[in-house]
Amino acid sequence: MTGTVPAPFTADTYRARMDRAARAAAEVGLAGLLVAPGPDLVWLTGYAPPAVTERLTLLVLAPGRVPTLVVPTLEAPDAAKAAGAPVLTLSDWTDGTDPYAATAALLGAGGRFGISDNAWAMHLLGLQQAMPGTSYAALTEALPMLRAVKDGAELELMAAAGAAADAAFEEIRKVTFSGRRESEVAADLAGLLRAFGHTQVDFTIVASGPNGANPHHEAGDRVIRHGDMVVLDFGGLRDGYGSDTSRTVHVGEPTDEERRVHDLVRAAQEAGFRAVRPGVACQEIDRAARAVITDAGYGEYFIHRTGHGIGVTTHEPPYMIEGEELPLVPGMCFSVEPGVYLPGRFGVRIEDIVAVTEDGGRRLNDTTREMVIVD
Amino acid sequence: MTGTVPAPFTADTYRARMDRAARAAAEVGLAGLLVAPGPDLVWLTGYAPPAVTERLTLLVLAPGRVPTLVVPTLEAPDAAKAAGAPVLTLSDWTDGTDPYAATAALLGAGGRFGISDNAWAMHLLGLQQAMPGTSYAALTEALPMLRAVKDGAELELMAAAGAAADAAFEEIRKVTFSGRRESEVAADLAGLLRAFGHTQVDFTIVASGPNGANPHHEAGDRVIRHGDMVVLDFGGLRDGYGSDTSRTVHVGEPTDEERRVHDLVRAAQEAGFRAVRPGVACQEIDRAARAVITDAGYGEYFIHRTGHGIGVTTHEPPYMIEGEELPLVPGMCFSVEPGVYLPGRFGVRIEDIVAVTEDGGRRLNDTTREMVIVD
Repeated sequence: MTGTVPAPFTADTYRARMDRAARAAAEVGLAGLLVAPGPDLVWLTGYAPPAVTERLTLLVLAPGRVPTLVVPTLEAPDAAKAAGAPVLTLSDWTDGTDPYAATAALLGAGGRFGISDNAWAMHLLGLQQAMPGTSYAALTEALPMLRAVKDGAELELMAAAGAAADAAFEEIRKVTFSGRRESEVAADLAGLLRAFGHTQVDFTIVASGPNGANPHHEAGDRVIRHGDMVVLDFGGLRDGYGSDTSRTVHVGEPTDEERRVHDLVRAAQEAGFRAVRPGVACQEIDRAARAVITDAGYGEYFIHRTGHGIGVTTHEPPYMIEGEELPLVPGMCFSVEPGVYLPGRFGVRIEDIVAVTEDGGRRLNDTTREMVIVD
Repeated sequence: MTGTVPAPFTADTYRARMDRAARAAAEVGLAGLLVAPGPDLVWLTGYAPPAVTERLTLLVLAPGRVPTLVVPTLEAPDAAKAAGAPVLTLSDWTDGTDPYAATAALLGAGGRFGISDNAWAMHLLGLQQAMPGTSYAALTEALPMLRAVKDGAELELMAAAGAAADAAFEEIRKVTFSGRRESEVAADLAGLLRAFGHTQVDFTIVASGPNGANPHHEAGDRVIRHGDMVVLDFGGLRDGYGSDTSRTVHVGEPTDEERRVHDLVRAAQEAGFRAVRPGVACQEIDRAARAVITDAGYGEYFIHRTGHGIGVTTHEPPYMIEGEELPLVPGMCFSVEPGVYLPGRFGVRIEDIVAVTEDGGRRLNDTTREMVIVD
């Protein structure tokens, strides 16, 4: 890890993002935003600390004030190198002093603040204790749209990451699956993602045969056999933006049932994709994909939501799930990834990243969704 | 990442640890403990989720109750494979239901709970909202000793990790430094840690010349030159337990000043080590090391605390820092790592992991602390 992030943005971009975030906070009645290390901080400042520890690092944003990054003195030189540093004030604190009191001094009067979802509980408790007059809301709940809508430059980076994932799939379908361990194919996949420009590989799921029926199986010692269905789900970051693709391949010729389930999931994925357009609620994407599977009698085997947002992370809000009424807006990017999981037997999942356009959706990865037969 | 951890412990060990934690919680007036994914959960259950996401995973421990792991349905198969799973109740929740309400039902009446330092703020806010009658304390503040004292089996694993780090240093001192980038030497170091049994490399700092004056510099593009001081600080996990070693080497013959500063840091490290014995407060280790540097007129250049705990992570409480009055107990393991950082010029840091014994301290890594001359 380093103190910088490889996305090609300037301090002006980060200034505009921070201004936008502070205004958005004010619009929903927040006195400010408290941003912890992680994707929010990367997106707003370009800064990722060398390590996330118990030492408080916190970006304080409030309308009409210069953005201030509270940072351990030790890490100030790293923070100063971030692309967004020129438009920030660094406020460093040394070991043995109280960073919560220092933050309280910056915040002035009480009020309600948005705080990063992944801020450490110990830091929230420290702030709550130092400022009894404050209350807090999780950032993605208070401002679900903060990072959700990507601008033109971001969409180009997302598309490049998707194209790299497509290229990795085109190569992995040529390797031998039969007789090799899942973990070996996973290592091939990771190498291909890197070969096509990913600097971070977040996951390379290879779930063969009955392992495919566990949607979160990663890749293990199981030796892949002729006749196996194999779920591949792989992604990571390229130039700071994410890819996330699933395809289900078959080693040799599938049975009629395997082909039928694969066709069903493919139809569900298509239905989810076709439901994408501005103004539609997130839950409608889930409903569209789920209806296809439920109508075919497999509803009880589709045991997860249909999708999740993606951007500077490979997994973030908004979620395509029943109950999420957030309307889609052009520039939002998320996965559409229905699946069917037959316990003890096999699973099928097909996933594309979709960007909302002015009048529909655009797939950012788009390699064939037909069932690919591998060796 | 996988759902299991390679440390050779049985369900009985995890049961004993959970019992001990619940009793310790009751002794300090807590109604229970809420343990999030991360080192606490690994230590208590052997479980590490495939990924840490916004989906709530939380171990609920309370005296006299069966330990319960709240887990997303999707991840329940992973959790069921953990070494501690046989002595846990799994309570799974599906996408779209409210995991905080489910947790509240497990907790019964209100009270004060300890919560993992690194639990997500969004989860703490969710619990605070679902259970207005509760209050919370950061786990390491409420129970600083929970994981701090290692038992015999843990000490053996810690010693094996330290010996592996020593072996890596003995090899890295033989490689060529001059003319190569810091990042290349860092890659060598990472390979050596893995070759000597580490399964996770957390950091391989190679900070040459002026970069050495930033204690948190990692390793970059700078080409190491003849005449450079080079701070090496490397560690990770072997069989689930951590190593963390620093040595400062010199490319070719050092100047008198470089040698004097190195000798000073070495004397400070020795003084810190010699202060280790049961009953002494953590801050005394910091004071002992710091006094040597301050007395020599370099106090302003020793800009961090003297040490940190280590165990199933490479960085955890207790901290060897002014103000920390926690007394040392046999079995505690921590770093003793004073340094001197001369801005724009060079830095020196020397670090060993020390285990508290019945009558003093034992170095778990112990390769030479004399200045090593490299090519």
